[in-house]
Amino acid sequence: MHVITNCSFLIHYRYPSAAAAFLRTLRHPLSLDAPSIFKVKALFTSASYSELDNARAGRSSSLASHPPSSDFTQKIDVNPPKGTRDFPPEEMRMRTWLFQNFREVSQLFGFEEVDFPVLESEALFVRKAGEEIKDQLYCFEDRGNRRVALRPELTPSLARLVLQKGKSVSLPLKWFAIGQCWRYERMTRGRRREHYQWNMDIIGVPNVTAEAELISSIVTFFKRIGITASDVGFKVSSRKVLQEVLRRYSVPDSLFGRVCVTIDKLEKIPMDDIKNELRAAELSEQAVEELLQILTVKSLEELEEKLGSSVEALAELKQLFSLAEKYGYSEWIHFDASIVRGLAYYTGIVFEGFDQERKLRAICGGGRYDRLLSTFGGEDVPACGFGFGDAVIIELLKDRGLLPELSPQVQNVVCALGQDLQVAASLVATRLREKGQTVDLVLENKPLKWAFKRAARVNAQRLIIVGSSEWEKGMVGVKVLSSGEQYDIRIDELE
Amino acid sequence: MHVITNCSFLIHYRYPSAAAAFLRTLRHPLSLDAPSIFKVKALFTSASYSELDNARAGRSSSLASHPPSSDFTQKIDVNPPKGTRDFPPEEMRMRTWLFQNFREVSQLFGFEEVDFPVLESEALFVRKAGEEIKDQLYCFEDRGNRRVALRPELTPSLARLVLQKGKSVSLPLKWFAIGQCWRYERMTRGRRREHYQWNMDIIGVPNVTAEAELISSIVTFFKRIGITASDVGFKVSSRKVLQEVLRRYSVPDSLFGRVCVTIDKLEKIPMDDIKNELRAAELSEQAVEELLQILTVKSLEELEEKLGSSVEALAELKQLFSLAEKYGYSEWIHFDASIVRGLAYYTGIVFEGFDQERKLRAICGGGRYDRLLSTFGGEDVPACGFGFGDAVIIELLKDRGLLPELSPQVQNVVCALGQDLQVAASLVATRLREKGQTVDLVLENKPLKWAFKRAARVNAQRLIIVGSSEWEKGMVGVKVLSSGEQYDIRIDELE
Repeated sequence: MHVITNCSFLIHYRYPSAAAAFLRTLRHPLSLDAPSIFKVKALFTSASYSELDNARAGRSSSLASHPPSSDFTQKIDVNPPKGTRDFPPEEMRMRTWLFQNFREVSQLFGFEEVDFPVLESEALFVRKAGEEIKDQLYCFEDRGNRRVALRPELTPSLARLVLQKGKSVSLPLKWFAIGQCWRYERMTRGRRREHYQWNMDIIGVPNVTAEAELISSIVTFFKRIGITASDVGFKVSSRKVLQEVLRRYSVPDSLFGRVCVTIDKLEKIPMDDIKNELRAAELSEQAVEELLQILTVKSLEELEEKLGSSVEALAELKQLFSLAEKYGYSEWIHFDASIVRGLAYYTGIVFEGFDQERKLRAICGGGRYDRLLSTFGGEDVPACGFGFGDAVIIELLKDRGLLPELSPQVQNVVCALGQDLQVAASLVATRLREKGQTVDLVLENKPLKWAFKRAARVNAQRLIIVGSSEWEKGMVGVKVLSSGEQYDIRIDELE
Repeated sequence: MHVITNCSFLIHYRYPSAAAAFLRTLRHPLSLDAPSIFKVKALFTSASYSELDNARAGRSSSLASHPPSSDFTQKIDVNPPKGTRDFPPEEMRMRTWLFQNFREVSQLFGFEEVDFPVLESEALFVRKAGEEIKDQLYCFEDRGNRRVALRPELTPSLARLVLQKGKSVSLPLKWFAIGQCWRYERMTRGRRREHYQWNMDIIGVPNVTAEAELISSIVTFFKRIGITASDVGFKVSSRKVLQEVLRRYSVPDSLFGRVCVTIDKLEKIPMDDIKNELRAAELSEQAVEELLQILTVKSLEELEEKLGSSVEALAELKQLFSLAEKYGYSEWIHFDASIVRGLAYYTGIVFEGFDQERKLRAICGGGRYDRLLSTFGGEDVPACGFGFGDAVIIELLKDRGLLPELSPQVQNVVCALGQDLQVAASLVATRLREKGQTVDLVLENKPLKWAFKRAARVNAQRLIIVGSSEWEKGMVGVKVLSSGEQYDIRIDELE
């Protein structure tokens, strides 16, 4: 792709590749007075897979400039809304590659794909535990006066669907989803307001064998895309550790979610604020100190010393680490009591994937949420799952030089040499497509040189040329682009 | 899948398949007093690919019933918001199948996939031509006081992206997208408020070769999924026909979009209202009559009689029908001057795909929009494209008995016989997955009978049984489900 910076739109659009050459040759400042030159800068103003750094640096608000046309109606901002992304072909190829890996791994593990509405009832996401997520809802009243919200996460919708399906489904369910989620965050640090999230959930299994299976699937994903245990690790803990401390200080169960949400803010807000929030939840000074103490524990041995060997949290964590060994991913995970996760509904094992250099935000996270369904008015079913965003992993892959090179792929470019042969070219294209060949048909009367450039741009394997003398003999010319080989062939023999 | 209607949740979830049998055997009304029996009806209350008819019949607002649990927080509606859909596995398989066909056809034609934000600036969709779409916008003010809207269609976003890319891209662009679109419509006739739309657009080609290519791709799609020309046809016209009439009555160009939008309502609102709207646009009585007259024309010969042979509309239509013949789809299309389409921005050829029995709404529609970019403040580029929704085509396929049977597909179910062999089963599953085999691993201690049922439900090819006597010899049992063949094999030989 070439960039023409001082040529009028009209010339460029009608004769894209000729325009630059034309201007170079004539050295005629044909378009210096053309009023509608778009700033090429506009290309770099929205956060994309390949340009996350630019987004971090801030975002231009360049507008389409006013053209001379009498049809002019309004200027629009050519960028997507702040915090959102377009997916032009090069970005879409990356997204497709990433999602395909999410999908293939989920299928390897026997999970079935599901999806839910992007727009849900607001009530589904409003919990009373003081989560950050509540203040970041994209919510509004629809034309029927219903409070609705763009989903900030997928789990509540999944729980809703499980409730709806009720007894008609056989447990366990193993479901995965890849869906766009929305959070209205401050746009510092290049964070976006939407991202795609890969979720895998197991509904109906109370054992930590389920968590072990989930972590195994994420590890499988990492290995598949070239990420090793020296790049990425998992911190694992259990909310039952905190629950045990709260139980010892007779803190009521109903405060559990709120306490967890507060503790999750440890690295985000000052310690005094954390303590105040905990005191506000009627925790004694001693309970607060004990809670903060337990969070510093980094080994199961130490945890056993503090809590004794009989607590449920310990038994489950031990079983998980033992399973990890058999699965073959024990070098990927370690115990870290400071991991709590920010969502109110987790009840047991929680885990978080992070880059070993600690340069990026969490790559993924999840855990067990055995009591989510009852908060929606249903009977509880044991469940666990994780969310894995599409942003941080791309940053990591870029950092490690592991982003794949994905170029456009078309097998054939078919080009007629002359207006009167356009119809013949359509026929050739149709024949090839019927045989399963992908064909970019040149739809205008273009010189051969242009067709070659086009074929190179779309990485075509062959350029099929429909010329009049060959066509009269029922033949077309074939140029194999990798080898330069060139030959004529009867159209009925073309495949 | 079996449906248990009077068994408590707990029993069902823990022992899903055993519960019904247990109740049948004992004839003990164990759970008649269980308070949390969900209405199975809830399953049929949202419009899904397979249950469109039920949606049409109205929608229950059944709520999750109040459980005895002390964790109770709030009742939620277990259904997705009115007019939206969940995609449980069976619906998702259908969506994936449909989208895969959209994708493969687009790629056959050399198109590259793109996407845009679901949430766009409202300004992108608000045109002044009185379109229905404007009153159906899901729009709101975000937390930063920006007017935003869930996209009702994809074309304006595409135009925005083309403007943004400016001169950095080589024309023509051939782009396709499959995106969710939102319209707040009245919920009569089972219409939904969201649908997925497949779009293909060609940017930078002024010739009708582009429209011919687009229609060819839709025909290719139809043929691929078993739809013939006796099921579906295309009505084709050109807005230049109306433009010619308006020109003859000296109606200013600026009224063109508004007149087209009015005329498109012909079958939706009374004729008097149409005439009044046209008069309000300052059309003379004679111009109104002439316009309405021309819409009744059903052949190019008649059109030529009325407008003369020299008008641009006629030349383009003739070329399109001639190309259709060479492409081999002329039996699929016919001229019909009444086709105008409801969007303001079309300028030339317009077309609509419909079922031959006329029982359904339009299946797809599109046309040329050469002046859209200038309405956004850019320089115009010739462009055309179409939108193809995911709802009507599914209704048609269902009607014709052409919906594919898509069942879950897992190659292996791996089951340990005994709690202590769970870890061994994980190891077997990991081995198989490393060899590319999909594995549904049984994560709980289940009897063999349960594993067989599970294997049948997920259509597994093999059931791999990890039993203690075999495992001690480094072997597992294999049951091939299609043949009933059964044998033991060393784990390192398993593939």
